[in-house]
Amino acid sequence: RCQQSYQVQTGPSGCRRCYVYRSAPPATKSFSVKCSPKVQCSVSHQPKLSSYLSPIKLDEGSTVLITMSCASEEENDSKLSIWYYGEDKSILGKALLHLTAVEISLDVDADRDGVVEKNNPNKGTWKWGPKGHGAILLVNCDSEWRYAKTLDSEQNFISTDSDLKDMSLMVLRTKGPAKLPEGYKLTMHISQGDAESIRVFMVKSSGNVLCNYLKKHYPMMLNSGVLTREVPYVGGSEEVHFYVEGRRFPDKDFNGLISINLSLLEPINQALPETPIFTDKVVFRVAPWIMTPNTLEPIEVFVCSTSDNKKFLQGMRNLVGGSGYKLKICHEYVNRGDRWMQDELEFGYVDAPHHHFPVVLDSPRDRELNNFPYNVLLGPDFGYVTRVPHRRDVSSMDSFGNLEVSPPVTVNGKEYPLGRIIIGVAFPTATKGRNMTKVVQDFLWAQTVQEPVALFSDWLVVGHVDEFMTFVPAPDRKGFRLLLTSPDAGYKLFRGLQRDGHGKAKLFDGLHDEKPVTVDEILDDENLEAENNYVQSCVDWNRDVLKRELGLDDEDIIDLPILFKMAEDEGVLRAMPYYPDMVNMIVLGKNLGIPKPFGPKVNGHCALEAEMCRLMDGLGLKCTFIDDFAAYHKLLGEVHCGSNVRRKAFEFKWWNVEM
Amino acid sequence: RCQQSYQVQTGPSGCRRCYVYRSAPPATKSFSVKCSPKVQCSVSHQPKLSSYLSPIKLDEGSTVLITMSCASEEENDSKLSIWYYGEDKSILGKALLHLTAVEISLDVDADRDGVVEKNNPNKGTWKWGPKGHGAILLVNCDSEWRYAKTLDSEQNFISTDSDLKDMSLMVLRTKGPAKLPEGYKLTMHISQGDAESIRVFMVKSSGNVLCNYLKKHYPMMLNSGVLTREVPYVGGSEEVHFYVEGRRFPDKDFNGLISINLSLLEPINQALPETPIFTDKVVFRVAPWIMTPNTLEPIEVFVCSTSDNKKFLQGMRNLVGGSGYKLKICHEYVNRGDRWMQDELEFGYVDAPHHHFPVVLDSPRDRELNNFPYNVLLGPDFGYVTRVPHRRDVSSMDSFGNLEVSPPVTVNGKEYPLGRIIIGVAFPTATKGRNMTKVVQDFLWAQTVQEPVALFSDWLVVGHVDEFMTFVPAPDRKGFRLLLTSPDAGYKLFRGLQRDGHGKAKLFDGLHDEKPVTVDEILDDENLEAENNYVQSCVDWNRDVLKRELGLDDEDIIDLPILFKMAEDEGVLRAMPYYPDMVNMIVLGKNLGIPKPFGPKVNGHCALEAEMCRLMDGLGLKCTFIDDFAAYHKLLGEVHCGSNVRRKAFEFKWWNVEM
Repeated sequence: RCQQSYQVQTGPSGCRRCYVYRSAPPATKSFSVKCSPKVQCSVSHQPKLSSYLSPIKLDEGSTVLITMSCASEEENDSKLSIWYYGEDKSILGKALLHLTAVEISLDVDADRDGVVEKNNPNKGTWKWGPKGHGAILLVNCDSEWRYAKTLDSEQNFISTDSDLKDMSLMVLRTKGPAKLPEGYKLTMHISQGDAESIRVFMVKSSGNVLCNYLKKHYPMMLNSGVLTREVPYVGGSEEVHFYVEGRRFPDKDFNGLISINLSLLEPINQALPETPIFTDKVVFRVAPWIMTPNTLEPIEVFVCSTSDNKKFLQGMRNLVGGSGYKLKICHEYVNRGDRWMQDELEFGYVDAPHHHFPVVLDSPRDRELNNFPYNVLLGPDFGYVTRVPHRRDVSSMDSFGNLEVSPPVTVNGKEYPLGRIIIGVAFPTATKGRNMTKVVQDFLWAQTVQEPVALFSDWLVVGHVDEFMTFVPAPDRKGFRLLLTSPDAGYKLFRGLQRDGHGKAKLFDGLHDEKPVTVDEILDDENLEAENNYVQSCVDWNRDVLKRELGLDDEDIIDLPILFKMAEDEGVLRAMPYYPDMVNMIVLGKNLGIPKPFGPKVNGHCALEAEMCRLMDGLGLKCTFIDDFAAYHKLLGEVHCGSNVRRKAFEFKWWNVEM
Repeated sequence: RCQQSYQVQTGPSGCRRCYVYRSAPPATKSFSVKCSPKVQCSVSHQPKLSSYLSPIKLDEGSTVLITMSCASEEENDSKLSIWYYGEDKSILGKALLHLTAVEISLDVDADRDGVVEKNNPNKGTWKWGPKGHGAILLVNCDSEWRYAKTLDSEQNFISTDSDLKDMSLMVLRTKGPAKLPEGYKLTMHISQGDAESIRVFMVKSSGNVLCNYLKKHYPMMLNSGVLTREVPYVGGSEEVHFYVEGRRFPDKDFNGLISINLSLLEPINQALPETPIFTDKVVFRVAPWIMTPNTLEPIEVFVCSTSDNKKFLQGMRNLVGGSGYKLKICHEYVNRGDRWMQDELEFGYVDAPHHHFPVVLDSPRDRELNNFPYNVLLGPDFGYVTRVPHRRDVSSMDSFGNLEVSPPVTVNGKEYPLGRIIIGVAFPTATKGRNMTKVVQDFLWAQTVQEPVALFSDWLVVGHVDEFMTFVPAPDRKGFRLLLTSPDAGYKLFRGLQRDGHGKAKLFDGLHDEKPVTVDEILDDENLEAENNYVQSCVDWNRDVLKRELGLDDEDIIDLPILFKMAEDEGVLRAMPYYPDMVNMIVLGKNLGIPKPFGPKVNGHCALEAEMCRLMDGLGLKCTFIDDFAAYHKLLGEVHCGSNVRRKAFEFKWWNVEM
């Protein structure tokens, strides 16, 4: 049987074991082995020799390990022979093995340098960190077309060459005779579990790639319907190219790892299935979706234009233009009056050594801006992803003003070089409350590189974390400050004004759509103070969580003087800002766009603006106050809620995170 | 505001921070702090003192950290006062804090010694290994009742005291004044995600526990419908006991970890929800389901009695009785002719420091033995678990003859002290094939401590791994040997017989229901040899996988002389044993119950039995050959398929596995 079973050699990694005892004639006592030049063999429990000409005692464990130094040029161009001896060295039989060596290697960019190297020893596993290894796959979630678009990952074919750069190159390298021995073949295969997450296309090297029928040139090899397929063996020293496409982001039921196998099949006889005698395996990890904190440089700013927000738009134009960034306006025929650009979507990106592009996460909020992310943003090298709640259990908590991300932090020794995602949920002890919907939370947690922190934001009518916190860049300490709303700081400021004789100074002065109120009136309102004590305790609760989960000290936090008031909402009392909520700002490098608070004036200057500037000056930040009172504040939102910033990606590569 | 906000102290772990700057009157330049004896305070950026009587400069970061050395006996029995000074040390104001200290600690058995210790610093996290920590929960999957049973975990109440030992004790320890200050309260809460996996009951210490209305004494605290509930505060130094019940095994969507929180809530005013000012957290891991390999000592053996298996039963009675174990016979009115005791169920167990019991995994195979695991096995301290396939995609691969477990192994340095689960699936390169159903595979992988290995068994008509492999104990090497079927070994044996002049010896001699066949006839059948070459290559393929995944050498493996033949099955050729498949044996300590092969006789002795004995003698194992030809072999099963062994649990504790 040896002849047959050992005909094909797979190398360099491959080698074959011949169970000498099994194939020996009965009564065999010893055996000897001789090979032709390119063949190396080693007999179990024997010193390594080029041949074993003098008889070796045969026992049940006797095996010969056969390898070959290089690929064959022709079929059966090498040989190995085994003689079997009985008592007194009589020859009982001889086995002649005809050997053909084929080099097979399925290759990927396992060292993450953007180039597919040859037979990387680590290609079959995946390891995090700068010393790590393992190839990377992007979810092909952009669309090569601006019009009549579909997600590329939802097309069963490659519609244009440009789509290839969103995929990962995989190379099959073979070296051997012009053709494989009769009946032998190569197959590529994936598991049922991985099949829904990827697709593999082959590059047909046939001539004109510019012709109109590109599908012909990139035939689909594997997908959820086809788990295994024969791949061509090209004689001599050849390469066959494949492109692997990611189709799913990591999620609760998918850790992001997939593997692709290539096997050499050996025939037994016509009637029986072939058996794999050599399998090469490569592993990919699907790149996670990554968010960008305020400390990264902006690229463009998105706002909505509505019938009533001219003032706001003018303010934003000046700020964004003045800061040297692009302002993109979503017009009314698209936004249909929905001005909350922050809430409908979150900008992020995906990154691999060979390619990267921005990806918008579309919120299940789905109000009038619903179609903006897909219809306007999705396009070539601009990806799109969303999650659809099981039931329609969508609340205000699902707006992405309730989804933020911190700058990079280190928490008792553990590094988060991409920061940590921050979401707002119901109070842990609340018997009932509003939460971000499960499918979105599952998605965020599954990305793993920006491990989320859950804050308590259900105490607010709108319920978004951006109503009480934000991050601004800082030249010192951790490179940023956490800004928190603080009623206590607000009361302190107002008491100071009263003491200095400004008790009659008016908030909202000159606003025709708001009744002015004096500092004295605010300080006399005991109920308001009780409500603000409650708000302060809610903020302090989150302050403690943020200090613990982001590793912050009190010195990393700045309290902003902002008062709240309570209103009944769904039968419970919840909070809303008493005057424009200055923490709900847009951060553009060193320029801050802050809701104009309309605070009490002292010598013609707003005391709240003055305090805000004083606090930010120390960090070298410039405050621009934008009047959003009528068009946003009165509708329970502010500057941040009404804008969205697409920022540059991190320099830091996610695969270098230590997990 | 300080008065109010700092009234309650939580200790020992708890401490409160007073933001002096916030509460200071305007124009305050400095402050001083004085506390009563039991109070310790420390001012930010100041040396630690018992009091700070000389004024300290006030800045925005000024905070006072307040702790207390012991619990209060009465409400507000301690005080802390802060003086605020302006320019030239003029006193601008004073804040007096009334302090009440309450000790709160939610306790579990985090050090895994079976006893709930006090406030273990690691109780809030879970770590694997002998140096690890973290409490353990059992799935309460047994039934306290033998008759009219339901799984205890499916009852919403505790039906008998004996049920408590299946749960984990959790103790709330409090120390403080007779009652909490007005409006303060304790609540226990869990997350929505954890809520479906556990339940928490409270022990009402009210009198007669033997009364009939036990529910009254163990009121339900938390479950999937109630995520948070107030728990009583008992004055003085008191304990409240809780019992935590696991309801779900780890699975693809559940990593087994759950946490329970206890918070002290502070009131703000009537209209507003309270805020937690102190939260204590404990973490449990649900114990995995663990399988028991052949090397563990048997307790009882299960077989079916049918109209036609008297011979087999007699053989088993002698073997099991002779080995000193209990034989349990499932009678025909229960098994309704289904004799495949191995296939309907798998015995395993769950283990925690406080308790452990066997748990049967019921196969989705569901033939006539369907109800046996639930109706017969489930009972007090005998658990039950099953998985229901999404679609009815159940095949022969779902029988548990296709689910085995290896003895403990070490694979390049990685230890598997509980062995590795082994299942059979379709050939990786097969375009279509039979697999174990996904929900069962997901369940097995999710248990994690016996990481599964998938073998290729679809080449067999029946398709079970126990048709070509088993493990037997050994005195040397790794403590066991892997036995594999080997057509090569079979052919070698038959060739030897032919050479020694026994070519006319007959297999199946004297069996009235099988036509005898001679050694010569077998060796002359070229088609049979081709089929066995194929079978050998399938076994060798699995042999390579087993060597790699279990870290075995060829010396750890013994080839058994067994031939196969191919038959058409669902349009493809698959294999079945040519004569009784000796590897399909029952292992009872040093006694092996082996299918009687009915091989060719040499001087009145079966050559196959002789070879089998020769191979096993070296390991000190005794072979008993059991005639299963008519009642099992002819129906494509053997001794192992027709029996099942419940074994002792591992001495090794699963939580000591290094993950």
